[in-house]
Amino acid sequence: MPYIAPLKDMLFDIEHLAGIDQVARLPSFEDAGLDTTRAVLEECARFNQDVVAPLNVAGDRQPSWFQDGAVTTTPGFKQAFAQFAAGGWQGLQHPPAYGGQGLPKTVGAACAEMLHAANMSLALCPMLSEAAIEALLMAGSDALKATYLEKLVTGQWTGTMNLTEPQAGSDLALIRTRAEPQPDGSYKVFGTKIFITYGEHDMAPNIVHLVLARVAGAPPGVKGISLFLVPKFLVNADSSLGARNDVQCVSIEHKLGIKASPTAVLQYGDGMAGSAGPGAVGYLVGHENRGLETMFIMMNSARYAVGVQGIAIAERAYQHAVAYARDRVQGRPVDGSADASAPIIHHPDVKRMLMTMRAHTEGCRAMASVAATAHDAAHRHPDADTRQQNLALYEFLVPLVKGYSTEMSVEVASLGVQVHGGMGYIEETGAAQYLRDARILTIYEGTTAIQANDLVSRKTVRDGGQVARAIAAQVMATEAELAGQGGDDAQAVLQSLKAAREAYAKVVDFVVGQASTLPGAVFAGSVPYLLATGKLVAGWQLARSLLVAQRLLATCQDGPFMQAKTVTARFYAEHILNAVPAVAQSIVAGAASVTALPAEAF
Amino acid sequence: MPYIAPLKDMLFDIEHLAGIDQVARLPSFEDAGLDTTRAVLEECARFNQDVVAPLNVAGDRQPSWFQDGAVTTTPGFKQAFAQFAAGGWQGLQHPPAYGGQGLPKTVGAACAEMLHAANMSLALCPMLSEAAIEALLMAGSDALKATYLEKLVTGQWTGTMNLTEPQAGSDLALIRTRAEPQPDGSYKVFGTKIFITYGEHDMAPNIVHLVLARVAGAPPGVKGISLFLVPKFLVNADSSLGARNDVQCVSIEHKLGIKASPTAVLQYGDGMAGSAGPGAVGYLVGHENRGLETMFIMMNSARYAVGVQGIAIAERAYQHAVAYARDRVQGRPVDGSADASAPIIHHPDVKRMLMTMRAHTEGCRAMASVAATAHDAAHRHPDADTRQQNLALYEFLVPLVKGYSTEMSVEVASLGVQVHGGMGYIEETGAAQYLRDARILTIYEGTTAIQANDLVSRKTVRDGGQVARAIAAQVMATEAELAGQGGDDAQAVLQSLKAAREAYAKVVDFVVGQASTLPGAVFAGSVPYLLATGKLVAGWQLARSLLVAQRLLATCQDGPFMQAKTVTARFYAEHILNAVPAVAQSIVAGAASVTALPAEAF
Repeated sequence: MPYIAPLKDMLFDIEHLAGIDQVARLPSFEDAGLDTTRAVLEECARFNQDVVAPLNVAGDRQPSWFQDGAVTTTPGFKQAFAQFAAGGWQGLQHPPAYGGQGLPKTVGAACAEMLHAANMSLALCPMLSEAAIEALLMAGSDALKATYLEKLVTGQWTGTMNLTEPQAGSDLALIRTRAEPQPDGSYKVFGTKIFITYGEHDMAPNIVHLVLARVAGAPPGVKGISLFLVPKFLVNADSSLGARNDVQCVSIEHKLGIKASPTAVLQYGDGMAGSAGPGAVGYLVGHENRGLETMFIMMNSARYAVGVQGIAIAERAYQHAVAYARDRVQGRPVDGSADASAPIIHHPDVKRMLMTMRAHTEGCRAMASVAATAHDAAHRHPDADTRQQNLALYEFLVPLVKGYSTEMSVEVASLGVQVHGGMGYIEETGAAQYLRDARILTIYEGTTAIQANDLVSRKTVRDGGQVARAIAAQVMATEAELAGQGGDDAQAVLQSLKAAREAYAKVVDFVVGQASTLPGAVFAGSVPYLLATGKLVAGWQLARSLLVAQRLLATCQDGPFMQAKTVTARFYAEHILNAVPAVAQSIVAGAASVTALPAEAF
Repeated sequence: MPYIAPLKDMLFDIEHLAGIDQVARLPSFEDAGLDTTRAVLEECARFNQDVVAPLNVAGDRQPSWFQDGAVTTTPGFKQAFAQFAAGGWQGLQHPPAYGGQGLPKTVGAACAEMLHAANMSLALCPMLSEAAIEALLMAGSDALKATYLEKLVTGQWTGTMNLTEPQAGSDLALIRTRAEPQPDGSYKVFGTKIFITYGEHDMAPNIVHLVLARVAGAPPGVKGISLFLVPKFLVNADSSLGARNDVQCVSIEHKLGIKASPTAVLQYGDGMAGSAGPGAVGYLVGHENRGLETMFIMMNSARYAVGVQGIAIAERAYQHAVAYARDRVQGRPVDGSADASAPIIHHPDVKRMLMTMRAHTEGCRAMASVAATAHDAAHRHPDADTRQQNLALYEFLVPLVKGYSTEMSVEVASLGVQVHGGMGYIEETGAAQYLRDARILTIYEGTTAIQANDLVSRKTVRDGGQVARAIAAQVMATEAELAGQGGDDAQAVLQSLKAAREAYAKVVDFVVGQASTLPGAVFAGSVPYLLATGKLVAGWQLARSLLVAQRLLATCQDGPFMQAKTVTARFYAEHILNAVPAVAQSIVAGAASVTALPAEAF
């Protein structure tokens, strides 16, 4: 099944919701206006449609393969990644000084969606490099930057994030990997890391691991964790590769999905034969015991990217389902509009499923696009207050982009299977792969519960609900526009949006008011709070889409597209956003029944 | 992971909600009182826990295997099925005249849940035999009954249902398989059937296929379909096996889950070497051109059974998740109740997930138990009116048991993966298998949309909403009891139940009122109508559970269990049932946005 990048929808969001014209007014983004954006996206679409997407099924059927410490990736992956690097895609958002193109995240996020939609398993490799690049840009010493950044930015080498250990997943306080200071200022790292995405592979000659570990004597818990760069091969002064470092892949996991993406168990410092060990040579990134701060920056970047993966796989599943629904002839339309069996896309329930898939995908895409622009303004706006406001907004949106887009992606991919009927359950159809692939998204880079904890604690309670209420105020402004718009569609959206926003405001009051006195009650509703907030923000962006579409319809630009945008916004309001008040009531009044059962009663 | 049958919950439902005492007053069920039921369930639990459950993982890792027309099942399956047959479990509900035990469905449904929870892939074989038995009991000639029934009832042979063809899935009007009358009264069958569960295997020496086909000259569409019995081996007058019939397994499918259950493509009448063909010898079951009537009886039985599969796999996923949540230590409780990292079952969001899994499972189990009793009364009650009322109730509940329990099972199994975090995505953990296995349930034996069409057309509109409104009236009676009960728990449940029932009544008015004038609008909401009805009925049964539990608590019988029953009912009301009013609003007012987009706009 080919993949067709949804350029029209992406550009609609970037132009009208995210506001690329504003982005292009930011220092150093002057060339990143709509025309450049369109050109970049079109080029990106061609590459991903033609080169990357055709390898998606192969990755599932011939997964990465482990033998004797080495991982062989799916045939074709190495070549596609080389083309990706040669095309400059890894450096899209990174400084020209290191070989990047210096484009805004507003553009980069759309490009990332295409890559993940084309082939999520392959795309994970550059996604992890991205996180490593961000960490080094922010906290790396000049020496580390000089040695590693250009190699990563140009896709010659790749990066990884090493957090998880068998006993330390969501709970990083339990990390045991240790780092011993050496006389030359480097460290020797010892320990076992699991679930390391592309921790070993054959797509690049060197792999740059960013590793959380404890220095001897560090404080217990998360305040004693430091971040280290540990290369697979040590690097000589002339940038050539030196000795093999003492980090070894001992196995890869057999997973439900993303099978082509090798998930490695890495052993550090075990005295691997032929290596520079015992002890893996590592270099401190930032300050001792403050590794988590840097890691959080990497994680914010990676969490946003995982949210984009959700949107990407939802889009791919949607396209697959639409194609099948157009093709499969089965059953007469219930409204008697045809005498013979018709393509199932004409059946109301199939339309309902496809509309649900479409509305979720477009809503989350719009939310992510707006978040990306906040990121750009947070980093580049000349005014400090504006930077700060945008940073706060971006950081509020990250757990939503991650948590909400991924939860919806599992639902969308599952609906994609359902549209296919019995054929959806047969692996060769391909619909099931999206569900299996999507199922990791609500788990890695912090489960939905971890995102919800972040949304509650750091993003809502810490500022007394300021950002949350500012969003509600902006939603009210959109309501006022809808009220002035007239027409059934705008009124239906207004009614649902207003009810959701009012219910949401009560939840924010509850969360802010009770977090310190009744934390158990607040956290009993943390995930529902995240989901309700995600629904509100995505629904709000679609409401804005409707206003834009109605305005442009009046001037006759691309009528069918604008009409579809209107219908999709209304569908979202009437069938998805309308769930918010009941969820809000569950959160505010229903905590007791969540936690009442003692552990032994389950 | 061992499976422990939830005997206490099953017996609670059977005693207090289904009312086994009433069942035991029905003719021929006099011996099936609570004590017998308990004894049968305990024996059934031992067998499934000890013999069947241990083969579940093996079935996933070493699926059934096809070569040269033959299917080899997972090692151990053949022996386990032989023990199942020897234990008399296949005949539990069938007439003693054919070797059965003549027990009510109220008991049989609980036993079926255990078998499916223990090993859904294995359990599919006897489930399909069950459907074949029902068809023969109802419509088979004396000769067919004499030749085949005892063999099937005693589990010596197995049965299949052959409906689907490549072009005919949900739409049986498109069936092309043809049957040619022979001078001796038999037929010769020609055609290709796909998705035939246990269509070929090595667990029994003969397989009895029930096959939909057209006789030459039959009317087009579903009114020209007849049902035939086609044995794998012809049967001699002395019951020994004769010639190989001309039906051949040409392949089995590579599926997302239930991998041990072979899903066969069967070729009828192709002149298989060594067979009695060309033409597969078949025998008419019932009357020509009325095969669909019989098939619907089989399907009702099979659909109920698939709903039970949903409950079963949800229970198994729940048990797996609870065990992991007790064991996995990660993170401090947010309420500060402990200073160190604790088992994750103490975290509010993990409790929320486990409570969701538990409440769905118990709610659907209660609904299925009550439906089974309606089936028993429909068939055995001495009073014709009572039989008719119970039949109407049972037939209304079948699409709910099938459609709702299976939709919830996918959600529950997915939550089970989520509770496991990263480990849930690793296949060796076993949590992912439940999700993969469960994902077929909303598809086969009629997708959720097909169930919803049935609920709307045949079960709601045809009788002008009579059964639906009778259920609403019974819910009101439960509300009155809750109002009289007092206490926070009963009041919380009352509030949610009342709101759901009132919203439901409006939906019924809409469905009944608009089905002929606005069928497109009604069917745009058919699946939401099914899901809302399922939530209401399951929530109502849990409300009844709460009343029973409060009464028994007062007399001090098993306090912790009754307390848990109360909390679970309240959780369901506050976090699941409370969604009904918004869904009702979507159905009544939101149809336009479901169907507005033309097919080409997707």
